[in-house]
Amino acid sequence: MEIQVKTNILNKNDRIAAEINAFLTSRGIFALNLLGSPGSGKTSLLEQTMRKVRGDLRLAVIEGDLFTSKDADRIARFQVPVVQINTGGGCHLDANMVKGALKQLDLTGLDLIIMENVGNLVCPAEFNIGEDLKATVLSITEGEDKPLKYPLIFKQSALVLLNKMDLLPYTDYQLAQVREDIAGINPQAALVTLSCRTGAGLEEWVAWLKARVREKKQNRQGENQDSHL
Amino acid sequence: MEIQVKTNILNKNDRIAAEINAFLTSRGIFALNLLGSPGSGKTSLLEQTMRKVRGDLRLAVIEGDLFTSKDADRIARFQVPVVQINTGGGCHLDANMVKGALKQLDLTGLDLIIMENVGNLVCPAEFNIGEDLKATVLSITEGEDKPLKYPLIFKQSALVLLNKMDLLPYTDYQLAQVREDIAGINPQAALVTLSCRTGAGLEEWVAWLKARVREKKQNRQGENQDSHL
Repeated sequence: MEIQVKTNILNKNDRIAAEINAFLTSRGIFALNLLGSPGSGKTSLLEQTMRKVRGDLRLAVIEGDLFTSKDADRIARFQVPVVQINTGGGCHLDANMVKGALKQLDLTGLDLIIMENVGNLVCPAEFNIGEDLKATVLSITEGEDKPLKYPLIFKQSALVLLNKMDLLPYTDYQLAQVREDIAGINPQAALVTLSCRTGAGLEEWVAWLKARVREKKQNRQGENQDSHL
Repeated sequence: MEIQVKTNILNKNDRIAAEINAFLTSRGIFALNLLGSPGSGKTSLLEQTMRKVRGDLRLAVIEGDLFTSKDADRIARFQVPVVQINTGGGCHLDANMVKGALKQLDLTGLDLIIMENVGNLVCPAEFNIGEDLKATVLSITEGEDKPLKYPLIFKQSALVLLNKMDLLPYTDYQLAQVREDIAGINPQAALVTLSCRTGAGLEEWVAWLKARVREKKQNRQGENQDSHL
């Protein structure tokens, strides 16, 4: 019976997620679900991204946290449309929360939406929230054993962003090992090493993002542009 | 209906947790539920702890992970009794998993059991697993905003271990802020700053642990020593 209830919840979530994705696709908006441990650097990455893409890409951000609007406050400084979702203790975003947040955003002319999920390597991987792709931020200070210990999130991610590379000289981090483990779990995943602190690697991340936005716009052709949520 | 099912699961969990705690109390064994983000340094702390307490304290370890026995393998090197629980994707330990693990351990003469939970700042805080106290490992590389963003786990922790202090000079970490925030959420929580890499702060942590073990032995008097799981 417990399993039955969980199945129903997931089915309902997947239905709403598909609805969100169709809605964003009809507008040619690329949606990224940004995942990672607490403190891996997801919001810092967004801050750096907004500095880099200003003028090139129009983006909006949905911030997921248990409590506080700390992350949305950091994003709002960049004059970017942002909605904070507080899960009130919940360990992940779900599609229904995102649907509510999208209704609060003016989507006119947007190129992409980045949805920063709750800091958690486990539960968010189980819920689609309408994204086109998932990307996971993993900081090197978390140790190189994380891909094998939390494989689902890496299996589902099109991109792994290995952050805090500036701290590499002060750790025993085995970079080759983590590359090998990620490739073993998900041979298709791209891997970008970066440091939000020094800016190293950000060009590659932004180039990846722009390529996905371009693809999404190309796919828009022929879609119904009048759909609504 | 969903809420009803969740309530039933939690009630059942709490009943088993209470049973475990009574069982360990009857043997004078102190049980610590060790929590923290992925990569905060929980297993490194255990490794350092075993080096420090060898000969003084007899401990056993229960390791919780989604997959792999990597952490248990690290512990087993110290000739300490260890059981690995694989949750198979589950985001936290529950009391029933711990009950099963305890049956595999020889508890004769033990002073304490440390139960290293799944790396996650959210879900494990909601499930008692028979512990006397919870302690949370928070690494400074996670940023100083974590206590306010994940308050439940800090509210429930008797001790916060602020790890990776050796990296402090290479970050912008606001130590005073995190102290203030933890004190605001949980004025009773002790805070120990440490580095598993350099060993700084380990004495204070071990002293805290020994004091709790002493208290537990004192509380044992008058308890039924024949209880079983």
